[in-house]
Amino acid sequence: MKKFTIGVVGLGLMGGSLAAAFKKIDDYRVIGFDISLKVIESAKQKGIIDEGYISNNKLNKADVVFICLYPKKIVEFVKINKNYFKNSAIITDIAGIKYGIMKDIEKVLRKDLEFIGGHPMVGKEKEGIEFADANLFKNSKYILTPRKNTDIRKYRLLEELLYEIGVLNINLLEAVEHDEYVAYTSQLPHALATLLMNNNEKAIDQKIHGGSFKDATRVAMINAELWIELFEENKYALSKTLDDFEKAIRDMKNCVQNGDKEKLHNLFTKGREKREALR
Amino acid sequence: MKKFTIGVVGLGLMGGSLAAAFKKIDDYRVIGFDISLKVIESAKQKGIIDEGYISNNKLNKADVVFICLYPKKIVEFVKINKNYFKNSAIITDIAGIKYGIMKDIEKVLRKDLEFIGGHPMVGKEKEGIEFADANLFKNSKYILTPRKNTDIRKYRLLEELLYEIGVLNINLLEAVEHDEYVAYTSQLPHALATLLMNNNEKAIDQKIHGGSFKDATRVAMINAELWIELFEENKYALSKTLDDFEKAIRDMKNCVQNGDKEKLHNLFTKGREKREALR
Repeated sequence: MKKFTIGVVGLGLMGGSLAAAFKKIDDYRVIGFDISLKVIESAKQKGIIDEGYISNNKLNKADVVFICLYPKKIVEFVKINKNYFKNSAIITDIAGIKYGIMKDIEKVLRKDLEFIGGHPMVGKEKEGIEFADANLFKNSKYILTPRKNTDIRKYRLLEELLYEIGVLNINLLEAVEHDEYVAYTSQLPHALATLLMNNNEKAIDQKIHGGSFKDATRVAMINAELWIELFEENKYALSKTLDDFEKAIRDMKNCVQNGDKEKLHNLFTKGREKREALR
Repeated sequence: MKKFTIGVVGLGLMGGSLAAAFKKIDDYRVIGFDISLKVIESAKQKGIIDEGYISNNKLNKADVVFICLYPKKIVEFVKINKNYFKNSAIITDIAGIKYGIMKDIEKVLRKDLEFIGGHPMVGKEKEGIEFADANLFKNSKYILTPRKNTDIRKYRLLEELLYEIGVLNINLLEAVEHDEYVAYTSQLPHALATLLMNNNEKAIDQKIHGGSFKDATRVAMINAELWIELFEENKYALSKTLDDFEKAIRDMKNCVQNGDKEKLHNLFTKGREKREALR
C-alpha cells in the first residue's frame, strides 16, 4: 500500500525530475499530467510515472500536486481545474518568482485546499523530459513560501517529502522577500551572463577567454520563454537590482579611472572574504 | 645532456607550476630564482627545480627565462639584471596585461636578447609555491605578444616549449589588442564577481543562491595586490569596458521596465547561441 499519491503537472525537465525522484521511493505512487500524450508515453517508458493523463479530472487521485508549468500558467491552472483537486490536497509549484502567484492564488483557491509556493534552487541548461533526472534535487536548496494561514501540518508534510527526494536545505521566506533576494542571487547573474555574451563580439571571437568568462556565462544557456516570464513577473525587484548594480559598476569604473587603489583593495578583499564564506 | 636550461624567476603559483611542468620533461634543466631562500628550499624539496638561487647573477645559465613576477616588476627586473642574462637568451613573462610592458621593455632590453610577452590563460584561487601544479597548463590557452622585430625562430622555439608542457592553443596578438580583449573576457568577469559579492549582503546572507551565483562569483577569490596592478595597468581599456557594460545593463533595465519582450527574447536567444558556440 502506497502512503501517498504525488501528482505532477507538466512533465518537463523539472516535473519529470520530480516524478522520477518520487517514483524511486516505494512509499509513493506518481501520477503525471501533461497536454502531450507523447510526453506521457515517454514518461511511462522511462518508468518515472505509474499513471499518466492528458485530462485533468484525474487530479482527484493525488494527495499532493506539484504544478510544474511556466509561471504565468500556474494560477490559471488551479483556477480552471479547481473542482478536480482531491479534498484537502496540498498544491505547490516550482516557479522562480513567488509574489504575484501567492497574491493571485488567494482569489481562486478552493477553501479546503492548501497552496504552498515552492522554488527549487536547481537547474540545468537543458529542457524537456528527456533530461529528467531523479538525482536533480540531491543536496539542493529549496525555498517554500507558505500563505498567511497555511496549515503547519501540511507545511511539514511537504518539507518531509522534499527531504525524501534529497533536498538538503529548505528556507521559509515571505514571497515578496523571496522575489527581492532572487532578483539579486539568480536573475542578476543570468542577466550578466546574457549581457556578457551579447556584447563585444570581437573580444569573444578571439577565443582567448579562460575559466572566469566561461563560468560567468554558463547560465547564458537560458530557456528564453521561461526567463522572459520570470523577468516580467519580477519587474520591480529586478529593475531596482539592475539599477543598483549599474551604479556599482559606475563606482568601480571611477575607482579604475582615478587610480583609487585603497577602494579597489577594499572591494577585492571583502569580495574574497565573502566568497570564501559562501562555500 | 639536457637540451635547454629554463630559468624561472619568482617561484609563486605560476612560476612554481612552470618549473614543475618543465622539470617533468627530461630535456630540460630548471633553475629557479626567488628573493626568498625558504621558497627556493621548498621548490628543491618538492623536486620542481634542479638548482635555485636568490642571487640573479646565475641567470646566465638559462637559455629561456620566464619572469613570473607581478606586472610592475617585470621591466624593472630586466633592467636591473640586464648584464646577467645569457647571450641571445629568450625572455618571456606571464603578466595579464601587455601593452605597458611591451612598450617599456624596448627602452631597457639588451640588443642580443629577445623578449616575447606571454599570458597564460590559467589561474587558481590559490597563491604560492605550495599550490604549484605541473598540470596547470594542460589543455590551456596561452597568448604571446612578440615585439615588432622578434626573431621568428625564437618565437617558434618558445611556442614549442609551451606545447611541450601541455598548452593546447597559442594566440599571437598585438599587445594593445590583447589588453582590450582581456579587459572584456577576463577583467570584466573578475570585476563583476567582486561587485556581486560586495553588494546586497542581505540577499547573499539568505544562502538561497544556486549554481548561477556561485559560478559568477568564483573568481571573486582574487589576489588583491595582483589585480590592483592588473586593473591599474589596463586603466583605459578597462574603463571603456566597464562604461560599455554599464550601458548594457541600463539597456536591459529599460527592457525589463518597459516589458520589451521582443528585445529580451533577442538577447536571451543570441546569448544562448553564442554561449553554445563557446564550448
